[in-house]
Amino acid sequence: MHSIAALQTIIGEALTERNFPDNPNTLYEPIKYFLAIGGKRLRPVLTLLAAELFGATIKEGLPAALAIEMFHNFTLMHDDIMDEAPLRRGRETIHKKWDINTAILSGDATLIRAYQLLAECKPELLAELLKVFNKMAQEVCEGQQLDMDFEKLATVTEEEYLHMIRLKTSVLLGAALEIGAILGGADKQDRSNLYTFGVNIGIAFQLQDDILDVYGDPSKFGKQVGGDIIENKKTYLLINALQLAKGSDKQELIHWTEINEFDQQQKIDRVTAIYNDLGIEKLAHKKKMSFAEQAYQALEVMAVAREKKLSLIEFTETLLIREH
Amino acid sequence: MHSIAALQTIIGEALTERNFPDNPNTLYEPIKYFLAIGGKRLRPVLTLLAAELFGATIKEGLPAALAIEMFHNFTLMHDDIMDEAPLRRGRETIHKKWDINTAILSGDATLIRAYQLLAECKPELLAELLKVFNKMAQEVCEGQQLDMDFEKLATVTEEEYLHMIRLKTSVLLGAALEIGAILGGADKQDRSNLYTFGVNIGIAFQLQDDILDVYGDPSKFGKQVGGDIIENKKTYLLINALQLAKGSDKQELIHWTEINEFDQQQKIDRVTAIYNDLGIEKLAHKKKMSFAEQAYQALEVMAVAREKKLSLIEFTETLLIREH
Repeated sequence: MHSIAALQTIIGEALTERNFPDNPNTLYEPIKYFLAIGGKRLRPVLTLLAAELFGATIKEGLPAALAIEMFHNFTLMHDDIMDEAPLRRGRETIHKKWDINTAILSGDATLIRAYQLLAECKPELLAELLKVFNKMAQEVCEGQQLDMDFEKLATVTEEEYLHMIRLKTSVLLGAALEIGAILGGADKQDRSNLYTFGVNIGIAFQLQDDILDVYGDPSKFGKQVGGDIIENKKTYLLINALQLAKGSDKQELIHWTEINEFDQQQKIDRVTAIYNDLGIEKLAHKKKMSFAEQAYQALEVMAVAREKKLSLIEFTETLLIREH
Repeated sequence: MHSIAALQTIIGEALTERNFPDNPNTLYEPIKYFLAIGGKRLRPVLTLLAAELFGATIKEGLPAALAIEMFHNFTLMHDDIMDEAPLRRGRETIHKKWDINTAILSGDATLIRAYQLLAECKPELLAELLKVFNKMAQEVCEGQQLDMDFEKLATVTEEEYLHMIRLKTSVLLGAALEIGAILGGADKQDRSNLYTFGVNIGIAFQLQDDILDVYGDPSKFGKQVGGDIIENKKTYLLINALQLAKGSDKQELIHWTEINEFDQQQKIDRVTAIYNDLGIEKLAHKKKMSFAEQAYQALEVMAVAREKKLSLIEFTETLLIREH
């Protein structure tokens, strides 16, 4: 089995080699620009890890891994428009650097490219691969829609929130792994366990994101600490704080989410203080660990030698204890 | 073989039966609304005609036919945003009735649904089906990009224009037919001939559109006659008129494309008069017929009994001599 770093290199090189055509440049230049912004290529790494876990070669796993990465980039391109995000990893987003129409069409072409890459897999596996990929793709759209819907709601329950992040971010990790397992010829049970592992790790990963936004080390966290607080983002932390706070704490928390004019640092400090009073970090950490636990249980029962699972466990640990 | 009307009914019913889920309603309601606006379902009819031509049943052809219709609707949803179109067949477009984000995500989910439907085809045909579908999908994006690029250019050549409409509208007709042929087990040569037939009919169809915009009967043409003239749309007619006009005619034509304030009817009348002087309608008609001729030649050599080709010819005739 290859190391994570080796797989990241393989994926990075493959993305450069199998590039898009030159014309129309107005369509393909933005895509090339966006792919070059990079990222850790976590999702295609999962596909290759799963493929190797069940005995497929890197060569066999690569097209599907790249399809997963293309799909992920398609969602980022379109989400950036919907979220009006000016920056992605410190670089201008496509709709900012070009315009909304360019970002729409670039996203469309990137999604279609994902399917082109998927179609390079063994013909006899295509039906199964498409089933998993298409279901995931539909759910990711549903998750993005729910996320946008939640912005307009006064309250969101913990259950609704967990359902949304399962769709928006976690099923992609599950599918990335299951697709690798299909390529390696894994049976239904192992496939299902690997999918469950991925989805639960994905939820834990998102909860870690919510925690880091408030409790991350500013010198290591890439974004502004407290960004979610400033935007009243209905994270696991805010949802539970609104649920648990009583009396003047609750009054103050609601006050901060309602006013439009405020000192950013003061808002971050005060909301964080209320979170601290309520023990929200511990609560979120506990929830995160319960999903990680479910993930490891699914991995545990999988019919693969323990030493083969180590790369996957190692990779997961780096995701869950990361500080950025 | 079924009649065109029978196939249209079958497709209409299948679209209603295999509807989208109810939740999230904010995602699926706009899609259902848009599909209900209707249209003639020309493209899925082509898929079913081709499938029957080579001996596949309607049941075998239906998922792919619906995939073609979904793909077409996806392009309309996103093109309407890019073109800032307020209406589609007299009804509000999604981005007008809801907002741009809704139209982006609805389009994405509709494209993914197209792939879900395609994946319902026989597993052993999926690799070939995907190859044809994906190539077409990529080319349609390229065509849309070129169309947008052309708006910003001072001049476009006839060759560039024909290349653009081939990609933006014609390859979809070619692929709709070829996919039907694949489902019927047609060989490579017949598939290729049917594709060529579809692409050339598609170009002829678009040229007919360009002609109807200027010379259509206002009582039968669904849109405003002269709409392309008002918008300076670089149609086959305008491109050739700018090429052929001389002296004061050329001056006047350029004048009409450059001024921002004008009386709409006067502009339409004067530009049409110049087209008439130059014999542009006849030129466009001749070009249209040359593509129709190429289409029929491709159909002629196809190894299928002549009587079986009749539905296809009948259908094509109604497309090419239509008045709306």
